[in-house]
Amino acid sequence: MAIFSSLPSFQEQCNLICDQLFLRVNSNDLGTITSAPLMLDILHEFTLRGGKRIRPALCYYAYQCFRADRLDAVLQASLACELLETSLLIHDDIMDEASTRRGGMTVHRIYEQVALGKGLSFGQARRYGESMAMLVGTVASQLGLQVLQECNFPVEVRDQAAQLYREVLIDEQYGQAMDMQPRQAGEYNGAYALELARNKTARYTTELPLMLGCTLAERRDMLPAFQEIGRDIGIAFQIKDDILGVFGREEVTGKSVSDDIREGKKTLLVSCTWEDLSPADRAVLARTVGNANASDEDVAEVRKLMRVSGALAKAEAEVVRLLNAARAQLDSLGLRSEGREFIREIIDFVRTREY
Amino acid sequence: MAIFSSLPSFQEQCNLICDQLFLRVNSNDLGTITSAPLMLDILHEFTLRGGKRIRPALCYYAYQCFRADRLDAVLQASLACELLETSLLIHDDIMDEASTRRGGMTVHRIYEQVALGKGLSFGQARRYGESMAMLVGTVASQLGLQVLQECNFPVEVRDQAAQLYREVLIDEQYGQAMDMQPRQAGEYNGAYALELARNKTARYTTELPLMLGCTLAERRDMLPAFQEIGRDIGIAFQIKDDILGVFGREEVTGKSVSDDIREGKKTLLVSCTWEDLSPADRAVLARTVGNANASDEDVAEVRKLMRVSGALAKAEAEVVRLLNAARAQLDSLGLRSEGREFIREIIDFVRTREY
Repeated sequence: MAIFSSLPSFQEQCNLICDQLFLRVNSNDLGTITSAPLMLDILHEFTLRGGKRIRPALCYYAYQCFRADRLDAVLQASLACELLETSLLIHDDIMDEASTRRGGMTVHRIYEQVALGKGLSFGQARRYGESMAMLVGTVASQLGLQVLQECNFPVEVRDQAAQLYREVLIDEQYGQAMDMQPRQAGEYNGAYALELARNKTARYTTELPLMLGCTLAERRDMLPAFQEIGRDIGIAFQIKDDILGVFGREEVTGKSVSDDIREGKKTLLVSCTWEDLSPADRAVLARTVGNANASDEDVAEVRKLMRVSGALAKAEAEVVRLLNAARAQLDSLGLRSEGREFIREIIDFVRTREY
Repeated sequence: MAIFSSLPSFQEQCNLICDQLFLRVNSNDLGTITSAPLMLDILHEFTLRGGKRIRPALCYYAYQCFRADRLDAVLQASLACELLETSLLIHDDIMDEASTRRGGMTVHRIYEQVALGKGLSFGQARRYGESMAMLVGTVASQLGLQVLQECNFPVEVRDQAAQLYREVLIDEQYGQAMDMQPRQAGEYNGAYALELARNKTARYTTELPLMLGCTLAERRDMLPAFQEIGRDIGIAFQIKDDILGVFGREEVTGKSVSDDIREGKKTLLVSCTWEDLSPADRAVLARTVGNANASDEDVAEVRKLMRVSGALAKAEAEVVRLLNAARAQLDSLGLRSEGREFIREIIDFVRTREY
C-alpha cells in the first residue's frame, strides 16, 4: 500500500474518530441495557481489527476535490462508510457461515463461544451466535447513519447524506440477494455478473464514498459524474478481484486459487468463458464451477479454458477500459489536486494490484 | 377491537398508502436488479397480511393532539411505524425459528420453499431462506426510514423524525439481545424483565409512534411527557400480554397457556413469583420455566404458585398503576380531544383486553 502516500496518517485519524464514537455511544445512558456494552465492544474491535480505511479516505478526498474547509467534520462523517462495511461483513459472514475475518473470529463465532462458555449446546450456541451477529450488524449500519445524522454540517446536507446512505444500504441487500441466488446448471450471464458487482461491491465501496464527499461539499451537480467514476472503479476492482481469485499467486493473495471456482462465484470471468466455449468444453465448466468436490484436474482445466477461450483477456481488457474511463472523467472535471490525486492513486492501485 | 371507533377507516387509508409506497419503490429503476421485485412483493404482502395498524394510528392521533393540518403527510409518515414492526418481526422469526406469523408462513419459510422448489437440499434451503429474510427485514427497516426522509415536512422536522426512528431501531437490537440472553438456572430479575419489556416492546410499539406524532407536530417540548406515556402504556401492554400468555383462556387468545412457561419467557410475572417463593417452591419453578419438556403437572404447579405467591396480583396491579399514570399524564396536558380520545381508547384496550 506504499503508493497511498497520504493514507497512513488518515488511517490513524479515522481510527481515533472511531474510538471516540464508541466511547460516546457506550456511555450514553446505556447503563440499564445490559446487552449493549458487549455488543458495542465487539463491534468496536471488529471495525478496527483490519481494513485500510480506503472507503472513508475516498470520501475525505472526494470532498477535497472541491473545498478545503470543515475537514474535521468530513473526517467524522466519513466513518459512516467504514461502519457500513462492518455491518455488511458481519451479516455476510453469517450467510456464508464464515469462521474467520480479518485474521480473527467472525462476530457470530465470537458470540457462539460466549454461549458455549455458558453451557449451551452446540446447536443452541450456533443459533445464539448468529442471532447476536444479526443484531450487532444492524447496530453497525445504524451507527453509520447516526454519524451522518450528527455530523457538523447544515441540516439539508446531513439529510442528503443520510438519504444517500440509506439508498446504498437498501441496494446492498438486493446485491447480496443476487449473490446468493441459487444458480441452475449452466446458467451464466455476464450482465448478471456486472449488475452483481455493481450492487454488491461498487455501490458501497466506491460510489457511496465519492458521492458522500460530493454531497458534503454541497456539489450535488457533480453527483452523476462521481457516481459514474465510483461505479467504474468499483466494478473494475471486483473483476480484478475475481481474476486474482483464480489466477493470483497464492503466496501473494493468501487465498487458494481453487476456492472461487469450487464455490461457484458468479463472476464475469466465468460468464465470458461459458459464452465462448464449445458444448464439450461447457460440460467441464458446468460440472466444476460451484462443485465443492470438483477434482484438481477439472479446476485446472477450467483455469485453462478461461485462458484459451480468451475470457481472461476480455476480463482484463474490461478492467483497463473501466479504469481508463474513470481516469479520463476524473481528469476532465477541473478538480482540486488535493483530492484528485488520491482518487488517481486508487485507480492505479486497482490497475496494478496483485494481491 | 370495536372500541376503536376511528380505527377501521384509518386502517384502510394506511393500507392504501402502503400499496402506493411499494408500487413507487418497485417501479424505481429496479429493472436490472433481478432480486428486488420478489423481495418487495413478499415484504408488501407480509406487511399487509395482518396487524391492526395500531402503531401508525397512535402516531397519527398523537399528532392530532396538537394540530389538524397536514394530516395527509402525517398519514404517509406514520407508515414508518408499521414498516419498523415488519422488520423486527421478520428478524425475530428467524431467531425464534418460527414457521408461522399472522396466519401465514414467515418470510424465511417462504424463501425456503422457493429454494426447495429449485432443487436445493433442505439444509441449503433453510440457510437460503434465513439469509433472504435477513435481507428483506433490513429492506423493511430502511423503507421505514425512507418514508420519514421523504415525507412532506420541513427538512428539520424530517431530520428529527429520522433520528428518532434510528435511535429506536438501535434500542430494539439491544432489547432483542436482552431477550435472547441465555439465563442461568434460577436467574430471575424483575428489573431485567421491565427493562426488556421497555426496550423490546414499548420502545417501538408506543414510544416511537407517540414521539413521532409530537415531532411531526413540531412540539418537541412535549417529547418527554409523550415518551413517558408511551413507555407506561407499552410496558403495561407487555405485562398484560405475559399474564394472558399464562392465564388467558386458550379459546380466546388462540395460544397455548403452557408455551410461555416452557419457553422460559423472561417476564415480570416469573420474576415476582421467584422472589416471593420458599426454596422448595423455587425448585419447581427452576425445573419448569424454560424447560421444553416440563410435565403438564409442573406447568400447572407453576401457574398455581404464581397465584398463591401473590405475583399475579402484583403484576396485575402494576398494569393498572402504569395505565393510571399514563391516563393522568395524558389528561393533564391540555391536548386536543381529536387526538387524545384515541390514546385513551388504547389505554382502555390494554386495561380490559382478554386476548
